Formats: sequence, structure tokens, C-alpha cells
Amino acid sequence: MNDRDRKPPFGRRPGKPFKGGPAGRKPVWRERDRDADGPAILYGWHTVTLALANPSRRIRKLLLTENAARRLADENIDTRITPEIVRPGQLDQLLSPDAVHQGLLAEADPLPSPDIETLAPEGIVLVLDQITDPHNVGAIMRSAAAFAVKAIVTTARHSPEATGVLAKSASGALELVPLVIVQNLARALTQLNERGFMTVGLDSEGSDDLAAVALCEPLALVLGAEGKGLRQLTRETCSVVARLDMPGEIKSLNVSNAAVLALYIGASRLGLMG
Amino acid sequence: MNDRDRKPPFGRRPGKPFKGGPAGRKPVWRERDRDADGPAILYGWHTVTLALANPSRRIRKLLLTENAARRLADENIDTRITPEIVRPGQLDQLLSPDAVHQGLLAEADPLPSPDIETLAPEGIVLVLDQITDPHNVGAIMRSAAAFAVKAIVTTARHSPEATGVLAKSASGALELVPLVIVQNLARALTQLNERGFMTVGLDSEGSDDLAAVALCEPLALVLGAEGKGLRQLTRETCSVVARLDMPGEIKSLNVSNAAVLALYIGASRLGLMG
Repeated sequence: MNDRDRKPPFGRRPGKPFKGGPAGRKPVWRERDRDADGPAILYGWHTVTLALANPSRRIRKLLLTENAARRLADENIDTRITPEIVRPGQLDQLLSPDAVHQGLLAEADPLPSPDIETLAPEGIVLVLDQITDPHNVGAIMRSAAAFAVKAIVTTARHSPEATGVLAKSASGALELVPLVIVQNLARALTQLNERGFMTVGLDSEGSDDLAAVALCEPLALVLGAEGKGLRQLTRETCSVVARLDMPGEIKSLNVSNAAVLALYIGASRLGLMG
Repeated sequence: MNDRDRKPPFGRRPGKPFKGGPAGRKPVWRERDRDADGPAILYGWHTVTLALANPSRRIRKLLLTENAARRLADENIDTRITPEIVRPGQLDQLLSPDAVHQGLLAEADPLPSPDIETLAPEGIVLVLDQITDPHNVGAIMRSAAAFAVKAIVTTARHSPEATGVLAKSASGALELVPLVIVQNLARALTQLNERGFMTVGLDSEGSDDLAAVALCEPLALVLGAEGKGLRQLTRETCSVVARLDMPGEIKSLNVSNAAVLALYIGASRLGLMG
């Protein structure tokens, strides 16, 4: 069966880098044309303002509509670099047609990815096993920031990059939750196990209901892609594989919905709800 | 500020109806070309097989790849009408490029919308106030089916139709959760109030944490669009407006993430977890 994800991962073909700005060349910037090592493209109010507020984020270029520039000024937000003022239509042209930029677009350096060995053994981390849809990963990052997750661990391959749609869906969470990029997820889970993390895989075939598992801190919650679920080696490396019991006829959730539920259950059980 | 949703609601311009099938005319079927009163386009394994299993769903046309036809036969699933066998590429052409059809595409009649007065006063219903993104509404419907929600109430306008991307994201939930389409949401909420429902609006500015509200059955959980939230009249018509308290720096979730969390809290508090 053709069981690929709803959207393919971003293409890795050597596309044109972002030429941004009204003076830029015609071939507009799109998710699929992105160079894997290119800049992060950030748009939308929360996404850009939180990037501007993050001292670790180097902003290369900032395009603003007049309205957005005025709103930033009204709210005393430092743009850090001199913005280029553009018409809304120019931003529309630089992005895909359904991108809601709200008058702000920044080209920035990707944030550094911390090493897994530097993660403090506390709280909750999320581990994503080949979740490729940028809307879902973005929504998961946003929920992670809402639940004060310490880091998100994911693989370099089979993951969307932290730019564009993902950054917008994350609504600024990229600036708040460190993204730990690893080459090998099973090895990363082994490192987490060795460092004292309880690693709990979520899977509809799990042996126990997550709400009934005796969770302890530090906790790593591990999520797989929809349809495919956790890979065999991922599952075997987790301390526990748990399911989310629900009373209705459908037994599986959209992956970002499953993630937020697992976070709520985890944070409540561990007394981390603040 | 340009604060429209991530994706605009489906266009209502009088597009060409679905001409489906390999013999169909060249202008392929796309979300935006759909006639508002046209058929529901269903694709993907769960979406189509649950439609086939639903006696209330009239199937007009069924396109299958050979692989999908074989899988249906292997699983003894009755196709109800004679399918047209097509190549995967033909389905790709009929849908948008990132639609994951898994070899199945059905053209069906929309399901009838029950009247709000026929809703039994029990369990949980969800009320959606102008949530326009079909991925989000689909994910919400899927979670609703997972939590045995009795119905979803939404407006005729400012809501995506129950077809295409929404149907795929709902993963079959359209067949399981009745969709009550109303003209006026405040009036529908008043009817729910009169019929004994506790109507709880979710809003980041709510006066109480949902987890601390004394919830009772029947319960209506009311969700607004991201960014805009609940409309004033919607908010005023709810018995309670509650927020979801979370410990992190981001205080709002993707709307489908907020929905599943509210459902979990509601179903747990009401003893409906099964």
C-alpha cells in the first residue's frame, strides 16, 4: 500500500537559495526549493517576534509591511536589523499561496542543535521518530513549549527542517524548545536510557494504557509517524510502550493530538503542571 | 493585521463538478474547484472503507487501484458498487499533489445533517465557531470519534465542507460522528442551554481552568478559530468560559490540540473514558 505521509518530506534537491526581497529574482522561495543547508524562513507574527526576541537567533534579513512595522513599533519590539518595507503582495509572492505571513518575513540562521549529552536529566523531553508532516511537527513543537518540554529529539533525515510551514505552525516554539538533531534515533534513546530517562513509546498496540503507567522523571515520550507508528528498533529501545485508551470507535489520533494528550498525562502525573 | 486563518475556507465560486474517473475531462478535481452542493470526495483507506461500511452513505462512484481492490477483497470489504480500476497516477491527477489516496477515491453524497433538536441530552458534543482549516477540523472530528462525542455542531458558513482534505484528516470519523450544520451558532448554543447542556467555551482568557470547573453531563465544549478565538456572542451564550492552564511559555495550542485536551479532561471528569 502506498502509505507515505500526508505530505512528503521537504525535497533535498539543490534548490535555489532564498533571494528574498522585492528585488529578488523571480523564482520565488518555496518549501520544496529550499537548500537543506539554507537559511530558516520565518513568517507570521508569533514566529518572527519570538525570533527577534531570541538572542541566539541571527536574523539575516527582515521584510515587513508598513502595518507590521507600525505594530512592532507600537509594541516596542526591537527589529535588530533595518527592515525592508514591502507591500503585502510581495510577501504573498515569496511564500506559498496559503502562507499566513501577517506582514512579517525573516530570513535567519538555523538555531544550533544541542548535543543529547548536554540535556539535563529532568522534566519531559519529546522524541519524534520520522514524523515528516511540517504542520504536525510544528503543532507538536508549539504544544511542547506550552508544556515546558525541555527538548525535542529527532533525526536529521526523515524530518522536516525547522523553517517555513513548520516554523509557522510552531508559532514561536522554535525559539523556546531546543531541537536536538541526531543521526540515529535508537542510539539517542539508548543514551537517554543510560542517563536515567524513562523512555515511553506511544503506540496503539502498546501493552499498557499511558494513564495507568507509573511514570517517573526524567521522562522521554516517543512518538512515531501516523500509519507507520514507531519503528521496530525504536520500540525495542523504549523502557515501556504504552497506548492511549479512548472510549470511541476510532482508536488512533492525529499525531500532534496524540502528542499533546501524552504531554498532558505526563505533566499531570509528574506534578509538572505548574 | 492580516489575521486570516492558515488556509482560506474553501472557495464558493461555482466550480466544475467532479468529472472523476480516467475518462473525466482534463480540469481535475481540486478542493477549490468544488461546487458547494457537489458530492463529497473521499480518499484514503480509512476514509473510504468506513464510508463503504456506512449504510447511510450513498456511494456514487468508486475508483480503485488494482492493489487497493485486492486489499479490499482480501479483507472481505463489500464495495457496494462496481469499482473502476485505475492506475495510481490517475488518482494523483484527480487530487492535489500531496493527497495521500492510498489507491482509493470515492464520490459520495454528503451525509444528512441532523437537527439540533434531535440530539439526545447526554455525553459530550463539540461546537466549532468558524474554524476554517480543513486539516484542523478533520483532526478534531477524528478525536471526536475517538472520544465517542455525540455530535459536532458547526455553522454552514465559515466552515470547510465535509469532503476532500477534511474527510481524509478525519480518517473515517465523518461516518461516526453526526455533523449538525446550523445557520446561527449563538441560537444553537441557546437551544443546547435550554435542553440542559452545560455549554463551556474554551478561551485563553477564560476565567477558570477547565480542569478545575465542575463539569456536568450533557456537556457542550465550544472552540473558536485560532487567533480570533470565540466570537463575542458565542462567548456570551456559553454557561462558562474556561481556559486550559499549561506550565510553559506558550499559552495557546493549535486548535485541534486544544480540542483533544478539552475532550480528554471532559470525558475523564464525566466518567466517560469507558
